[in-house]
Amino acid sequence: MSALLFSSLDDECASPITLSNRALAYGDGVFETLRVIDQTVPLIDYHRARFMRGVEVLKLGTATDLLRLFDETLEQAMVKLASLDHQDGLIKIFGIRSAGGRGYAPATPCFSQIYFQVFESPHYPSSYARTGIELAHCAHRLSEQPALAGVKHLNRLDQVLASMELGPLPEGLMCDQSGRVIEGTKSNVLVFMGNEIVTPDLSRAGVRGTMLSALLAGELPDYSIRQDDISYEQLMSADGFAMINSVFGLWPVIKVGGVTFEVPQMCRSLQASIMKRFGFAYEAH
Amino acid sequence: MSALLFSSLDDECASPITLSNRALAYGDGVFETLRVIDQTVPLIDYHRARFMRGVEVLKLGTATDLLRLFDETLEQAMVKLASLDHQDGLIKIFGIRSAGGRGYAPATPCFSQIYFQVFESPHYPSSYARTGIELAHCAHRLSEQPALAGVKHLNRLDQVLASMELGPLPEGLMCDQSGRVIEGTKSNVLVFMGNEIVTPDLSRAGVRGTMLSALLAGELPDYSIRQDDISYEQLMSADGFAMINSVFGLWPVIKVGGVTFEVPQMCRSLQASIMKRFGFAYEAH
Repeated sequence: MSALLFSSLDDECASPITLSNRALAYGDGVFETLRVIDQTVPLIDYHRARFMRGVEVLKLGTATDLLRLFDETLEQAMVKLASLDHQDGLIKIFGIRSAGGRGYAPATPCFSQIYFQVFESPHYPSSYARTGIELAHCAHRLSEQPALAGVKHLNRLDQVLASMELGPLPEGLMCDQSGRVIEGTKSNVLVFMGNEIVTPDLSRAGVRGTMLSALLAGELPDYSIRQDDISYEQLMSADGFAMINSVFGLWPVIKVGGVTFEVPQMCRSLQASIMKRFGFAYEAH
Repeated sequence: MSALLFSSLDDECASPITLSNRALAYGDGVFETLRVIDQTVPLIDYHRARFMRGVEVLKLGTATDLLRLFDETLEQAMVKLASLDHQDGLIKIFGIRSAGGRGYAPATPCFSQIYFQVFESPHYPSSYARTGIELAHCAHRLSEQPALAGVKHLNRLDQVLASMELGPLPEGLMCDQSGRVIEGTKSNVLVFMGNEIVTPDLSRAGVRGTMLSALLAGELPDYSIRQDDISYEQLMSADGFAMINSVFGLWPVIKVGGVTFEVPQMCRSLQASIMKRFGFAYEAH
């Protein structure tokens, strides 16, 4: 995450976070990290949909109330970002179940509070997008939990532990308990096999990224993506693969586990389409 | 959890919790809930050992530093509890990785902060221990994650979601993804089969409770406990079973999933031994 510019807790009238906060005690909530470009959020519909799916799965409260709160909070955060003279940046929105119950069981009916942080845009070396990246192959495997798969909830110890394996590398490959390829620590995987683009099935583990959802929804109609189980061996024998998310767009992978990969032409053309459609510019810095 | 008496954040010099706190953002830490009776913690060695195993698995910092901090914090909390004219109560200790890294990856070297809360003793109906309890059979199944099994970390969405199924019942039975019996939402399971006491293997999922650890370590030498996989069918055909933890001791189970159970004699004698050894009194109130 890049430099913090503002937190909704900085507001004078905000209540402080206590040790009874259910995000702190149990990870009982969801979050979204939204990339703002030229004062717009290109993937807003997908962030909103994933947030609301988390609200539903975790039963965080009344859907209409929380959708309104999400939109109001995002609006506040956009105004704040602009007031800080930033056209671009990241907004992180938390939806956290309110305390009030005893122990693990929440108070009923459930309701949740929304918080936000505003960050500067992250600065990644332009070589990540242009040349491609080397991935760590994380030994830490993802928990298997179909009931929570896809949701961007606050139980993220798997990603923390895997990220400790990255060293200087910008991203790592994570597998599930059976060794199937699932995702990166902060991105999804696209695998290029002949004329096909395949992405791992996320029904047992993993986060469904908003860039992936946008592609699966046909935002770029020239590229259809199939969801399937992908073994590590299948990945290693693919023509190539890439990591995608809403913050950095698409990074081709040129090396993992000591094996080097070419960047397929289809990967480059998809990357160009993503850049054009979702406003990414891979400027040098 | 019972009424909050004090939080270490109430200290004037305590730094407030921010949205960048890694417990809030990722559940990146561990906790212990310690039962204080007559100004002592009967299971202190097992709490300390589990806390330190969490420190090791999550790589939360230097073991010697964190053990010293844990002991100092517990001492402070005990003094605070006594100063509030309470001989008994609950102390919750959090070990939370300090912020400083970018995104999921922690700053290196890792260090952690310790916080505590002090609660009144919980008041459960005495019938739970005397007569036994009815358990919910939770439809929500535990995540499978051998790398984190046993550790009392702050990623507790499984317990939150299962607890929402309890309704008026005091506890629920949780199974893993394959349907094996693992634990309660806040307790472990002992199954009585003939002359044997069996407890579920916790190598793929579940929290290793301190009462269970004490029994497995032979604190009550008359009772040996075998760890093994236990299917739901095996549980339902057992002579009986009970839930144990460090806060309530032992509750026999008399009903789950519409099936009633007797309380075996061995369960009653084990309960009496636990009460005597660890200072539980099941007074009516």
